[in-house]
Amino acid sequence: MIKAVILTSGGLDSTTCLGMAMSQGREVFPLSIRYGQRHEREYQSIVDVVLYYLGKVKSDLPNEKFYGIMQPLKTVDVNLSSIGGSALTDRTIAVPTNRDEKKMSAEIPITYVPARNTIFLSIAMGYAEVMKADEIWIGANQLDYSGYPDCREEFLAAFQYLANLATKRGVEGHTLRVVAPLLKLSKAQIIKEGMKLKVPYQLTWSCYQGEDKACGICDSCKLRLAGFKEAGSSDPIPYR
Amino acid sequence: MIKAVILTSGGLDSTTCLGMAMSQGREVFPLSIRYGQRHEREYQSIVDVVLYYLGKVKSDLPNEKFYGIMQPLKTVDVNLSSIGGSALTDRTIAVPTNRDEKKMSAEIPITYVPARNTIFLSIAMGYAEVMKADEIWIGANQLDYSGYPDCREEFLAAFQYLANLATKRGVEGHTLRVVAPLLKLSKAQIIKEGMKLKVPYQLTWSCYQGEDKACGICDSCKLRLAGFKEAGSSDPIPYR
Repeated sequence: MIKAVILTSGGLDSTTCLGMAMSQGREVFPLSIRYGQRHEREYQSIVDVVLYYLGKVKSDLPNEKFYGIMQPLKTVDVNLSSIGGSALTDRTIAVPTNRDEKKMSAEIPITYVPARNTIFLSIAMGYAEVMKADEIWIGANQLDYSGYPDCREEFLAAFQYLANLATKRGVEGHTLRVVAPLLKLSKAQIIKEGMKLKVPYQLTWSCYQGEDKACGICDSCKLRLAGFKEAGSSDPIPYR
Repeated sequence: MIKAVILTSGGLDSTTCLGMAMSQGREVFPLSIRYGQRHEREYQSIVDVVLYYLGKVKSDLPNEKFYGIMQPLKTVDVNLSSIGGSALTDRTIAVPTNRDEKKMSAEIPITYVPARNTIFLSIAMGYAEVMKADEIWIGANQLDYSGYPDCREEFLAAFQYLANLATKRGVEGHTLRVVAPLLKLSKAQIIKEGMKLKVPYQLTWSCYQGEDKACGICDSCKLRLAGFKEAGSSDPIPYR
């Protein structure tokens, strides 16, 4: 059974990754990185999602013959709010809402967190080394977040190259793969795939605002809602 | 004036880097990463060293005509002890002492912290982006720590390549350089260089044990003591 460290954010994309890894028979080591984002709401989603998969038995889920194992959640804290520079970590910067669709795809938004995916993958690489895992999964998506430089295929390929130079396990001849199964899927395609796998979307959280109900108007909510609509489904979480 | 984020550990190597960057006229942004190492002793050294340079005026130091600016210390916490796997972050693993010289250079020691330099450089990259810095300096050394995969030149080159794909600043055409001025120097060469620059070695700390006085028998103390001896000098810090 291949061991895979999976970066989990409690959101739609990373939760779909968890479902895909389970359906592909991985031994899953979910990893959550609390980086000083504005709210703890999404952490609750991570915990709920991992508990959901920990509690499931094979017969509850599709693809019975080949099913993975969920390991307990590992959480690492890194206070990126101390370096700031993003609306997601700095409370003095407002989260943009109701942005124009064209603008959303054309410019790097203020919700970009400097170095976030590089830091996340680095920590995942360390955890993979300790657990002797051969894969890191990340829900990076090139289409919806074309503005984030660290969601691009060339970035992920460069990280994989780096990872195999950086570690004792790499020096010893093991290869670490960076797996980004959602990279070129649209939000609707991700949701369709997840629904086939019975991914518990009702437990996930995407809103940047982090209140009791999702706002429906930040970039993240807008992408999510449009994705469910295009997938011919409706989003099971509450909106205000 | 070129802005440079410099990773500082309070040790001999990174403090020499600080002195070199100051002498080369950089605007220095010292960055300390507390990663759950066993002791806080080295953090005190970081603070002391930065305060030393903050308090200095040009006339106190060599190379008066061309001298840098020290910015206040930035500290980021990341609890690598939660992933474990190293004697430096896991209290259940003993720090090796009195190891054989041959062994010290031939095998990757248990003091290796999985992914440490990758995580440090990633956080430095994020801070550099926020500060609009064009350089990251790291005191990595290939000769003394030949066992650490993330102290090698090819690793640092791969990180620099990654960094320029990973960030908004990179996408906008700015190039981030990874500077490792000590990479191929022996410990004695580092110390000789630092003494020319009046680096405050009396304030630095290298011992892995982290008690009031340095132990003198861990790998780090042994390398340091041998370096001072070979440089024809004596170490100004107290040993027990």
